[in-house]
Amino acid sequence: MPLPSPSPVGSLLWRSLRVYQVYGANTDVGKTIFSTLLCKAATRFWDNEQTAFLKPVSTGSLDEADDRHVQRFAPEVTNKTLFQYDLAVSPHTAALASKGLIPPDETLLAEISKFASRRASLGHGWLFVETAGGVHSPGPSGSTQAELYMPLRLPVILIGDAKLGGISQTISAFESLKIRGYDVETVLLFREDMYQNHLYLTDYFRDQHGIPVKTAPEPPTRDGIISQDVQNMLWYYETTSSSTTTQSILSHLAAKHSKRIERLESMRTTAHRTIWYPFTQQKNLSATNITVIDSARGDHFQTFTTDLPPSAPLLQPTFDASASWWTQGLGHGSPSLALAAAYAAGRYGHVMFAEAIHEPALALAENLLAGMANPRLTRVFYSDNGSTGAEVAVKMALRAARVRYGWGAEEEVGVLGLRGSYHGDTIGAMDCSEPCVFNEKVEWYEGRGFWFEYPTVMCREGRWVVEIPGEIGLRGGSGGHKVTFASLGHIFSMKERESSGEGAVYERYILDTLERLHREGRKFGALILEPVVLGAGGMLLVDPLFQRALVNAVRRSSHLFGQEGHRGPKEVGDSTATWAGLPVVFDEVFTGIYRLGRFSAASFLDVDADISVHAKLLTGGLVPLCATLASESVFEAFASDDKSDALLHGHSYTAHAVGCQVALESLRQMKEMDAHGEWAWAKTSSQMNEVAPKPSSAMTSKSCIWSVWGPDFVNWVSQRTAGAVGGVWALGTVLAIHMETKDGFAGYKSNAAKDIQALLTRGAVADVEGDGAGWNVHSRVLGNVLYVMAGHKTKEKSIRQLESVLRQALSEREHQ
Amino acid sequence: MPLPSPSPVGSLLWRSLRVYQVYGANTDVGKTIFSTLLCKAATRFWDNEQTAFLKPVSTGSLDEADDRHVQRFAPEVTNKTLFQYDLAVSPHTAALASKGLIPPDETLLAEISKFASRRASLGHGWLFVETAGGVHSPGPSGSTQAELYMPLRLPVILIGDAKLGGISQTISAFESLKIRGYDVETVLLFREDMYQNHLYLTDYFRDQHGIPVKTAPEPPTRDGIISQDVQNMLWYYETTSSSTTTQSILSHLAAKHSKRIERLESMRTTAHRTIWYPFTQQKNLSATNITVIDSARGDHFQTFTTDLPPSAPLLQPTFDASASWWTQGLGHGSPSLALAAAYAAGRYGHVMFAEAIHEPALALAENLLAGMANPRLTRVFYSDNGSTGAEVAVKMALRAARVRYGWGAEEEVGVLGLRGSYHGDTIGAMDCSEPCVFNEKVEWYEGRGFWFEYPTVMCREGRWVVEIPGEIGLRGGSGGHKVTFASLGHIFSMKERESSGEGAVYERYILDTLERLHREGRKFGALILEPVVLGAGGMLLVDPLFQRALVNAVRRSSHLFGQEGHRGPKEVGDSTATWAGLPVVFDEVFTGIYRLGRFSAASFLDVDADISVHAKLLTGGLVPLCATLASESVFEAFASDDKSDALLHGHSYTAHAVGCQVALESLRQMKEMDAHGEWAWAKTSSQMNEVAPKPSSAMTSKSCIWSVWGPDFVNWVSQRTAGAVGGVWALGTVLAIHMETKDGFAGYKSNAAKDIQALLTRGAVADVEGDGAGWNVHSRVLGNVLYVMAGHKTKEKSIRQLESVLRQALSEREHQ
Repeated sequence: MPLPSPSPVGSLLWRSLRVYQVYGANTDVGKTIFSTLLCKAATRFWDNEQTAFLKPVSTGSLDEADDRHVQRFAPEVTNKTLFQYDLAVSPHTAALASKGLIPPDETLLAEISKFASRRASLGHGWLFVETAGGVHSPGPSGSTQAELYMPLRLPVILIGDAKLGGISQTISAFESLKIRGYDVETVLLFREDMYQNHLYLTDYFRDQHGIPVKTAPEPPTRDGIISQDVQNMLWYYETTSSSTTTQSILSHLAAKHSKRIERLESMRTTAHRTIWYPFTQQKNLSATNITVIDSARGDHFQTFTTDLPPSAPLLQPTFDASASWWTQGLGHGSPSLALAAAYAAGRYGHVMFAEAIHEPALALAENLLAGMANPRLTRVFYSDNGSTGAEVAVKMALRAARVRYGWGAEEEVGVLGLRGSYHGDTIGAMDCSEPCVFNEKVEWYEGRGFWFEYPTVMCREGRWVVEIPGEIGLRGGSGGHKVTFASLGHIFSMKERESSGEGAVYERYILDTLERLHREGRKFGALILEPVVLGAGGMLLVDPLFQRALVNAVRRSSHLFGQEGHRGPKEVGDSTATWAGLPVVFDEVFTGIYRLGRFSAASFLDVDADISVHAKLLTGGLVPLCATLASESVFEAFASDDKSDALLHGHSYTAHAVGCQVALESLRQMKEMDAHGEWAWAKTSSQMNEVAPKPSSAMTSKSCIWSVWGPDFVNWVSQRTAGAVGGVWALGTVLAIHMETKDGFAGYKSNAAKDIQALLTRGAVADVEGDGAGWNVHSRVLGNVLYVMAGHKTKEKSIRQLESVLRQALSEREHQ
Repeated sequence: MPLPSPSPVGSLLWRSLRVYQVYGANTDVGKTIFSTLLCKAATRFWDNEQTAFLKPVSTGSLDEADDRHVQRFAPEVTNKTLFQYDLAVSPHTAALASKGLIPPDETLLAEISKFASRRASLGHGWLFVETAGGVHSPGPSGSTQAELYMPLRLPVILIGDAKLGGISQTISAFESLKIRGYDVETVLLFREDMYQNHLYLTDYFRDQHGIPVKTAPEPPTRDGIISQDVQNMLWYYETTSSSTTTQSILSHLAAKHSKRIERLESMRTTAHRTIWYPFTQQKNLSATNITVIDSARGDHFQTFTTDLPPSAPLLQPTFDASASWWTQGLGHGSPSLALAAAYAAGRYGHVMFAEAIHEPALALAENLLAGMANPRLTRVFYSDNGSTGAEVAVKMALRAARVRYGWGAEEEVGVLGLRGSYHGDTIGAMDCSEPCVFNEKVEWYEGRGFWFEYPTVMCREGRWVVEIPGEIGLRGGSGGHKVTFASLGHIFSMKERESSGEGAVYERYILDTLERLHREGRKFGALILEPVVLGAGGMLLVDPLFQRALVNAVRRSSHLFGQEGHRGPKEVGDSTATWAGLPVVFDEVFTGIYRLGRFSAASFLDVDADISVHAKLLTGGLVPLCATLASESVFEAFASDDKSDALLHGHSYTAHAVGCQVALESLRQMKEMDAHGEWAWAKTSSQMNEVAPKPSSAMTSKSCIWSVWGPDFVNWVSQRTAGAVGGVWALGTVLAIHMETKDGFAGYKSNAAKDIQALLTRGAVADVEGDGAGWNVHSRVLGNVLYVMAGHKTKEKSIRQLESVLRQALSEREHQ
């Protein structure tokens, strides 16, 4: 079942082996000479340990190759080259010219990892891994080395450039490494008398970065007589490798290695007594259960592990299956997002936003409005996260309703929503949700509104089912009923379902309820919904036809909400711009920006909100930022000659340039991936939209229902009833498996998904590939729901791999 | 009065003149040849315009100098070198060796600006400014060029490196420019057949950055016969400068220049119809009043201006006197913060924080706890901004009180605070403040608590006065009274004032009030204060003795708040760790992290809070992040076997790595500046702490009362009663001038400070230096209060300059 592919590699860290990567500020700055020097010194000063030199990729004829140099001058050192190309050009050019093997990046990483592993198993020692050319010289595949080696996250020895211009080269090379999350532990360069770059660089790196710069004498100039040259070099190495400077460099590196491990070892205990964790009952949290994340790249955390044998690597790749609380899209450690963040930081820092404008904020506003393709939306209000953005949305909506319906400030006005909805943890956002486990014990919480029942969608035992609760389905009846569909695509074919009259039962329930609430004298100022999926409320896929019916019913029912007041624009029911009935707020914080496969989750319902809230994926998973979009008719409700009638909300970092710039870059990449058919494999294989239009690899996401999770897999999972699977659904990057609960109603307090979660963690699921490496999956559960959320750059083979892991875990549970 | 110093320079942008900066990916990559080529092509294709070449700093003997080359091969072009050093090494070494003039960075910038200005006044044309060496080659002062030229923010032509290793050099140089906010408009390099770097770089820059890469043929190799070499070069320039490629480069640059200006021109109108501004009554906001910020560096925005003569530069430096809504400390566009942000982005992106730990979050927690030096605080909870952090603090405190006093979840529990306090704009944070203009019209707001009157501190007519409202001072009396002190330092000498019995009157008022509230049956779960200064409430400096008395009275009065319940730790009044009476929350969002001159504002009161909230300056003014610190006894109130008893708060981006890393770097720099006596000039000159201990330049901020604003200046301002100044105070980096109001009680709705604000904006205050350049100051007012807030790296001369500007504005008002 699993496709053959190397497992993700872990960062290379062992107790025994000190591994350092040697990068050069330029080509021809002495990387190999310094490597040889360090190898020789290591064997000299750590003479009861082993030392090795690894050249992953070497170019140039064998005679000139760097490993030959090491072999000649440090024969006492184990010496290995993984890929050798004859042409003395950069590896990607040499690899192309060789017409031979061009290893993919992951193969290269796996080979390095294997070599280092073997060395580590031999006991204590050193390994120096020398790169080719400069930091950004392209590797065989064409990726630049600084980027392709990121997952290994080896501490770096940067060889500085002693030549004219070398100060600039050294600092720039350092910065390219730094913005990719490398720790440069020392800068080494030749002592050169004319330019004396080492003097400047010593001060610079000490003052700016606390990094020691050390020098070695320049190697003897070659006089062309080979035997003499060799003698000179031997003498050079002999004297230089035994110097106290060289010794001090190694001592520094050895100390850094020990300190790194010590810190990793102590982090969970320090965190356990220092950190107050979000949403965590810390009485039940032991230090050993805290995940120490050393770094992250792509889909994977690099997590620290202590319960493996001493020879095992200390860091392991662990799939981030919660997409880091639903934020990740472009993957961890994205250099393009890092560069976007740094660009805005360098160009602006943060600049205040009241009555001011800067390019990233404006461009992002334009992009969002265009991306939403919702003709109602004209305005963008920035805040710092989904919760604040939801509060802003509610402040907007309530005011608009109050102004139109002429209510006084003292009147109690609530919101309409769905049961189990969730909009954030600030009090105002909490108040938008019905009383539940997330808020009922929070002191100032008071649910302000009414929350409807709704039908949910699930694949159960191979069939797509809409379950309609009794309250909705049969007036006066008590039991719910189920309607089966041929596919998820059919459920989302709303026009068709509407014309066949399926929505009538929903409409009846909604209107009856609204009329009852009206009779009870209750006042409402907003309809607030998470379109399509209720996230924190338990990964519930709501029948889209119901949400559509709810919006339309509310828009047609202004008479049930109030009488038009004297201020504000007149209500025009069919206008695309003016809100009707109540302002409709869509909280797309979780569901938007391609999480469910489309830019906007509203497009699944084919209705346009008056206010729309966007966060999480907005910044591609890097920094907090929220945008609340609103229509002009909502905006105008705040227009007044009294400045205190303005929307009195604002954060100091409103529209911070870093967040806006990162969001711009993120949206650019997302849209580009969509336009270029990046998810074609998922769209064609999922074949979920069997109605119309037929999916094709070329179609953008706007027009189809698709998921990265394969239909066969979803079908298989849905049949694991013996393993207590109650139902499952997949849409976009989200897979949600609902387990049957014995402990009452499915909910946050349930522990029904905990044992599956445990099976997914390291060691619990056996080696699916037979290559000895387990697939560690870090997941979060919501009560009885286990969900797995991929990023938008997660490769098909990783998804298939995850499916294998999940199949195995569910089978295991089935046979328990 | 003003010290002689060049005015800050503006970014160089004119309608007429297209200015480009030529940077090299390395030394010897052909910067001068490409510059000559572009100059020649510009005169050829734009033959009715002027073209100039500027070399700000040149090294090497005059014969080899770059301007000589341009002069020889492009004699039709105006050609200028500003600083010439004979030694062919990097400018800083050459400058040192020359024993001659080493221009400070600001002089260099001013000279470039002057030259460009003159060119711009001649009409349309081109100016190419060629740097020396690589992007980070140090300029004469030792700052690297990429950094020192940042304020000019010239669009860049990057000359790529065609040699072996040049791919790496070009990408790294690009990244160093990018993280400093430069826009690289094109990459040019020689077409070289062996390495063909241009092929790789063309794809790379197009795909990754949308930047066109263009090539020119390699120049003819020199054969040593000078006349022949010259002939060859002439022919090279003749053919290459007339090529369509060269023409297309210039067309691209010309189009970029036009588009940049068009965008700047349209931004305010686009923003006016697209952005929903925080805290702004947009009915009263015209597009022309929107400040367009092109970039920012140090203390200054670069703002777009349209109402100057056509020959004037389009961008002007404008002092950011609100410290961008109180966030700035280390200045705008800080490369070290940008690099810190990018490092964390590259190392982690964002990684989820529930039951997990990463280095920046843990290190920041340790740093904050250590920095606070408050033995009560042991726990750090992260959220996204001051408002969410305040909500977290209140959730913590209310629960702790409820658990100890055994209240049910349904009981109404409020907070104790001060009138006019402000804790943020989310509903829960709003509820902590008394009804006022910020919240009274917000639909779900309900003030939950009681807010005390308090004495305020001000310098009035040269005397430091504590004003005690009638309610406090004389029981039953109606009028307030004033107590005069010799200095602000005396007011902050709390132990002395306490022992002289000054606090008794405060204590009486506080206890009487608490007893009354107790009799009325009201319940409170927290005392929440902004220590020392109420920010958004009107920049009110509260008598610290009063806040200290309030904390101490609350801590001694547990019998007035409730009876100890069954759960939670027993109250021990004098313990440093266990809260007593009520949990005391200090909201240091505005006042902390050196805003008032000390790490923690609590230290002024010499009391330790149980919960402390930190944001704004926490990240040095870059990205939103908040840390709520709490004591173990508060933390333990949430311990339970029921997971829903946990603190149910958490944001997706909780403890985002970028924010934590930036905060770490920011705190490091702040503490270092403090320790190294960076503010000695302010501490010694202010002489504000005339009591004990006497300030000295060596003392860290912990032990003294100081401000960057000079005492003479503050004294002078306080005497401007004819100009309607009611009073003034200065502490740390904050200066607050309270204007008398005719429109009733001083408050947010007042416009009393608006006309001073208008006088500070561009053009309104005359040229104080006589060098023709005005000092533009962008300030924000709070009703009747004009405040000016410096950064922590603002230089003394800038402060003195600002004082001059303020003196002039106040004098002008006095004589109106």
